[in-house]
Amino acid sequence: MSLSANTFGNFFKLTSFGESHGVAIGGVVDGCPPGLSLDENDIQQELDRRKPGTSKFVTQRKEDDKVEILSGVFNGKTTGTPIGFIIKNTDQRSKDYSNIAEIFRPGHADFTYAHKYGNEVRDYRGGGRASARETAVRVAGGAIAKKWLLENYQIKIIAWINSIGTIKIINDDANSKQQLIENVAKIDNKNLFFLPMPFAENAEKNIENLVENYLDGIRKQCNSVGANLSVAAFGVDNHKLPIGLGSPVFAKLDAVIAAAMMSINAVKGVEIGDGFLSSQQLGSEHNDEISPDGFLSNHSGGILGGLSSGQTIWANLAVKPTPSIAMMRRSINIRNEAVEMRTTGRHDPCVGIRAVPVAEAMLALTLADAIMQDKAQCK
Amino acid sequence: MSLSANTFGNFFKLTSFGESHGVAIGGVVDGCPPGLSLDENDIQQELDRRKPGTSKFVTQRKEDDKVEILSGVFNGKTTGTPIGFIIKNTDQRSKDYSNIAEIFRPGHADFTYAHKYGNEVRDYRGGGRASARETAVRVAGGAIAKKWLLENYQIKIIAWINSIGTIKIINDDANSKQQLIENVAKIDNKNLFFLPMPFAENAEKNIENLVENYLDGIRKQCNSVGANLSVAAFGVDNHKLPIGLGSPVFAKLDAVIAAAMMSINAVKGVEIGDGFLSSQQLGSEHNDEISPDGFLSNHSGGILGGLSSGQTIWANLAVKPTPSIAMMRRSINIRNEAVEMRTTGRHDPCVGIRAVPVAEAMLALTLADAIMQDKAQCK
Amino acid sequence: MSLSANTFGNFFKLTSFGESHGVAIGGVVDGCPPGLSLDENDIQQELDRRKPGTSKFVTQRKEDDKVEILSGVFNGKTTGTPIGFIIKNTDQRSKDYSNIAEIFRPGHADFTYAHKYGNEVRDYRGGGRASARETAVRVAGGAIAKKWLLENYQIKIIAWINSIGTIKIINDDANSKQQLIENVAKIDNKNLFFLPMPFAENAEKNIENLVENYLDGIRKQCNSVGANLSVAAFGVDNHKLPIGLGSPVFAKLDAVIAAAMMSINAVKGVEIGDGFLSSQQLGSEHNDEISPDGFLSNHSGGILGGLSSGQTIWANLAVKPTPSIAMMRRSINIRNEAVEMRTTGRHDPCVGIRAVPVAEAMLALTLADAIMQDKAQCK
Amino acid sequence: MSLSANTFGNFFKLTSFGESHGVAIGGVVDGCPPGLSLDENDIQQELDRRKPGTSKFVTQRKEDDKVEILSGVFNGKTTGTPIGFIIKNTDQRSKDYSNIAEIFRPGHADFTYAHKYGNEVRDYRGGGRASARETAVRVAGGAIAKKWLLENYQIKIIAWINSIGTIKIINDDANSKQQLIENVAKIDNKNLFFLPMPFAENAEKNIENLVENYLDGIRKQCNSVGANLSVAAFGVDNHKLPIGLGSPVFAKLDAVIAAAMMSINAVKGVEIGDGFLSSQQLGSEHNDEISPDGFLSNHSGGILGGLSSGQTIWANLAVKPTPSIAMMRRSINIRNEAVEMRTTGRHDPCVGIRAVPVAEAMLALTLADAIMQDKAQCK
Repeated sequence: MSLSANTFGNFFKLTSFGESHGVAIGGVVDGCPPGLSLDENDIQQELDRRKPGTSKFVTQRKEDDKVEILSGVFNGKTTGTPIGFIIKNTDQRSKDYSNIAEIFRPGHADFTYAHKYGNEVRDYRGGGRASARETAVRVAGGAIAKKWLLENYQIKIIAWINSIGTIKIINDDANSKQQLIENVAKIDNKNLFFLPMPFAENAEKNIENLVENYLDGIRKQCNSVGANLSVAAFGVDNHKLPIGLGSPVFAKLDAVIAAAMMSINAVKGVEIGDGFLSSQQLGSEHNDEISPDGFLSNHSGGILGGLSSGQTIWANLAVKPTPSIAMMRRSINIRNEAVEMRTTGRHDPCVGIRAVPVAEAMLALTLADAIMQDKAQCK
Repeated sequence: MSLSANTFGNFFKLTSFGESHGVAIGGVVDGCPPGLSLDENDIQQELDRRKPGTSKFVTQRKEDDKVEILSGVFNGKTTGTPIGFIIKNTDQRSKDYSNIAEIFRPGHADFTYAHKYGNEVRDYRGGGRASARETAVRVAGGAIAKKWLLENYQIKIIAWINSIGTIKIINDDANSKQQLIENVAKIDNKNLFFLPMPFAENAEKNIENLVENYLDGIRKQCNSVGANLSVAAFGVDNHKLPIGLGSPVFAKLDAVIAAAMMSINAVKGVEIGDGFLSSQQLGSEHNDEISPDGFLSNHSGGILGGLSSGQTIWANLAVKPTPSIAMMRRSINIRNEAVEMRTTGRHDPCVGIRAVPVAEAMLALTLADAIMQDKAQCK
Repeated sequence: MSLSANTFGNFFKLTSFGESHGVAIGGVVDGCPPGLSLDENDIQQELDRRKPGTSKFVTQRKEDDKVEILSGVFNGKTTGTPIGFIIKNTDQRSKDYSNIAEIFRPGHADFTYAHKYGNEVRDYRGGGRASARETAVRVAGGAIAKKWLLENYQIKIIAWINSIGTIKIINDDANSKQQLIENVAKIDNKNLFFLPMPFAENAEKNIENLVENYLDGIRKQCNSVGANLSVAAFGVDNHKLPIGLGSPVFAKLDAVIAAAMMSINAVKGVEIGDGFLSSQQLGSEHNDEISPDGFLSNHSGGILGGLSSGQTIWANLAVKPTPSIAMMRRSINIRNEAVEMRTTGRHDPCVGIRAVPVAEAMLALTLADAIMQDKAQCK
Repeated sequence: MSLSANTFGNFFKLTSFGESHGVAIGGVVDGCPPGLSLDENDIQQELDRRKPGTSKFVTQRKEDDKVEILSGVFNGKTTGTPIGFIIKNTDQRSKDYSNIAEIFRPGHADFTYAHKYGNEVRDYRGGGRASARETAVRVAGGAIAKKWLLENYQIKIIAWINSIGTIKIINDDANSKQQLIENVAKIDNKNLFFLPMPFAENAEKNIENLVENYLDGIRKQCNSVGANLSVAAFGVDNHKLPIGLGSPVFAKLDAVIAAAMMSINAVKGVEIGDGFLSSQQLGSEHNDEISPDGFLSNHSGGILGGLSSGQTIWANLAVKPTPSIAMMRRSINIRNEAVEMRTTGRHDPCVGIRAVPVAEAMLALTLADAIMQDKAQCK
């Protein structure tokens, strides 16, 4: 698995380009197997899931996010050549951001980009390349991987929210996780906050309303809040993920998943299976025993020795609070002078919510790549 | 950053080979800058830190782990050509492991290797390629990176234990972490359990003794236990890490660190800075404000937008309990028949302890690679 | 130097996508150093040099080849983030090609694409991905590399025609080459056939006219013809290429140049310096002696041991005749039935001519990458 | 296909290390499919073919070249994990080379290594890393690829000498090549100079004797001479190479072969099929017509559009004369002072001869990699 700056994957590769307020963002999927049915709608429906403006808790910018496929598809099928696509930036409104041209916003990449590339070439408009807008490209590329996984291996990928700030949707003890992991196939995240219905805590008490009110309060305080997500891959019916996906040592499947997830904007932690709980567990608690009918538990998150075990693959993510908050904060400008500033504009109070389809996309890209590696060497 | 199966890095690359009970393990460091003073002692002293048999809490196998440099060094300096090295396996005692040739040990890679590569070619002796013995190669390669970082950039890398099972050495709230992060330069991990002296909880009450008794109890119960580690990179005096290390989007510095750490045997979780705490934080808590004298806190773990900020780089790791336990467990054999088995032999009750120098090595390799990337494109 | 299917380079990377008759072709330049002045004109002027329709000897299709930069440039400078660009396909005229949907044209990639990817997904329109139209993307990416090389290292790159079919423009003995190599800086290829004026044989006899008549005859015979090219990189004034570019062993500079050139459509041979002549030379003839003022000859083509020597870097290319000829030829259709067919349409009688700017682009990309590698490890 | 400095291949990867006079040279084959029968003899017999000292025309140094496999093989089969191997340097005789510590030998890499890495770290002993001794590692790695190709795809690879200096063994016109290409399966190169018996010119006149006398004369003149080689891959019986190997655009099969061959020490030119002849051919001569029974000729060298066509894959190589000659030559020392020097010692008068098994190894590595790529994406 290559982690080149702007290319993800060794076999099923996604190269990404584009800034928040440039002409367009886009990508190139190279290595996609030929013969997959694909049209723009397949990608569009995934893009629509991460689209801003779907509720008042995600940024109100109007981003149409209409994908155009430029190459690699002929007569409705992938040809095996690179699939180039673009998404034009239609709602750029650069003036919204002109006030931050000379100020480094706390929690943002402004400061580090300025030092790496030189401040004189920094595209400060909406975060430029560091904007979460870039994740639309991942969702687009991931949509292709998702379709291939489903049609060829009947693998489904789903992500959901475990908690938003201090509101727990799913309990974080090992038992609750084990129960949920057994029922992943029944999770339905088609709701405003990607909650894992019907397994959410207080599901009967209109949990969506509860979250809505909580986020409303956060926003009114000019603040933002973090979130905890899970993402899982599971087979349907008697079709399963091939066992042994991943490459031992440096490209362990969990290592690649960790990189894939940590590369998503604002992610600060990744766990596989029991994750940090395992640091307090005994061997007798953590090790998944085996029977002729399969594993008796799934504390490992479906990965042993860096290779998939045939169980549900499971990762958890910590997403930090949206860095852009309208509260007054201390910072510096490009002349290293102290300033006080507030980041106004249209921002999600909780970026973690929009990270859900992105996590799905990244897991899909990771697995497509791993399957192709396995085919090349072992199958 | 490439995550090829057995090669780590794109610029400063480590290729690793070898099984636990083969003739030798070894590696090739390709891309090391020329002119670095290097001899076998530089590597040996790091290898000695992870050597088994240093206490009764790490496996009692006698592994001499004597490194031999085969190439790439001339007249005491690196030449810029590949540095090949081997570590012979002197204490193989294959008979210890013959009983597991036909059984898949719970928590181990036996099952997944058998499915990926075919059971008929699986090297079951001591875990073969999946053995933690492979991490000696990482420590050897990392020793070269560490030396280069120190001599050229005055960067130091240190890891330590935060908790072992239920024993907390360092409190895990955000405040305790912020205090420790400010004092990383003063941490001394030269003790039996890599405890962060003098900052350990109960340091005055002989914390080593306390840990020793705890692990003794675990071992007598034929059990094992997990651990929580931190690893940090910091500059000395007024020399600092170059700001802006890492590559935005897929090869973000934190993404590469996540992969590097998750690729270490038994690691199940990785956090950068506040990590999972950030999922419950408010933006006003998490965002590090900036002053003309620098950042006012370091919740980010020294990385913003995937690029290093010039602050201490900080990651936390969850290590699962040693999978090999002498307690009777249910499993299957290679004919898919149910068996009961216990894994006897010489095993660490807590593999997390020996992961400490490995984590240091992986961070060193990651940073050496990132510095070279930054030089190539931006400096 | 990575030779991934559709990405060239490890540091200064070009990813290419697009088919001859799709919506657009395009590319992503990833890794370009920040701070380079760049606008669409810089790319357009190179594209215009390979544009079809400039004479009756290059295909009469109207390809506007207008490049649009989508990202990676801000306020007229490269930002260090990926430079995405597209070139729309405006003159697609698919009907011209519909007759070849079911026939494999001799000398073309039709047959091999059908076997690799499956004939049912083959984009037969104008050769699809195998069309030389793809080289426009290389010229666009190469334009950026060329500009960077010139502005930062004062390196110039030039290619020219040595012979077209049986017409020799430059004699191919070692002495003639040595003389030309010393005078590369004075070559001006700004003429219809990229002839190396004023060094062409019969330059005084209106060599352009001679070539024109020759190609006219070839075309009237419904035939096509091959060509021999050279491409060279040289420093200006007392500014020189850094010595030691390239990486010994597999990524020798000459190995990468060989791959770069052989990857151009229709190229069947690559030589460095004296090339195939050296297989008949004595050591006393071939070895370039050295004096305190520099090398006394340049049979090596500026590369020794895979590293640049500071002399003019020099490669020769053999380009096969355009495979599309209007003469009746034997072939098969997709049902493996024998057919007789002629390839009509607008085709260059000598594709070698349009390969000239492409060869320049590929050498520029190769050198930019090599310079960045050298900086990363050695400088 | 990756051309990393010391790693070749993306799927079937060979990493090489070692200097001519260091402790050992060696390599790591990563990605080899599991289940291939392999022991040291399989490698040794290929190594013995390139061993120095087999005649008076190859260097008389005693290099035992005994390969030791360190990992990746268990119970006689490859396990799918990295195959580490070393070849100890037993006949180092460093004093032979001490006179060249301060002098740059014409035609050698001394000058360029000194400039790239710094002269103070240059391993001048026997050329260090630039020595052709490194090719033993390629032959060892290639032996594994060869065995896998033969056992799994019944592909055979053979190389031979076309000419040595001015002695033609095979005529170089297109017709002679076409005849030989049809009879590749009958070539037997098991003779002192890897001549393509029984197809050599003057085969009945004891061509070995003729070559022997010619080289004797060259050597007595303190001179050396170049050579021209071919290397081919062909299927046996009705088993054929899979059609469509290679990746269009940058990693065309011919581009990768060109890089593989040009990366061999002293190679200055590579042709595919008709190569440079094609620059003078008409389309009607060059294009291979197709019939329901297959192609009617093979001017393309078995590659169309960068993908294998199912015909014999064919490349030609130009090897320059051995740079080390005992004739007095002008050069400079490390202080840029003019010197006169002769390179004494045990050197092949024609390095091209020993390049034959190396070319076979590189083609085997290239094809193994291409087959795995094809499996991953298309099969």
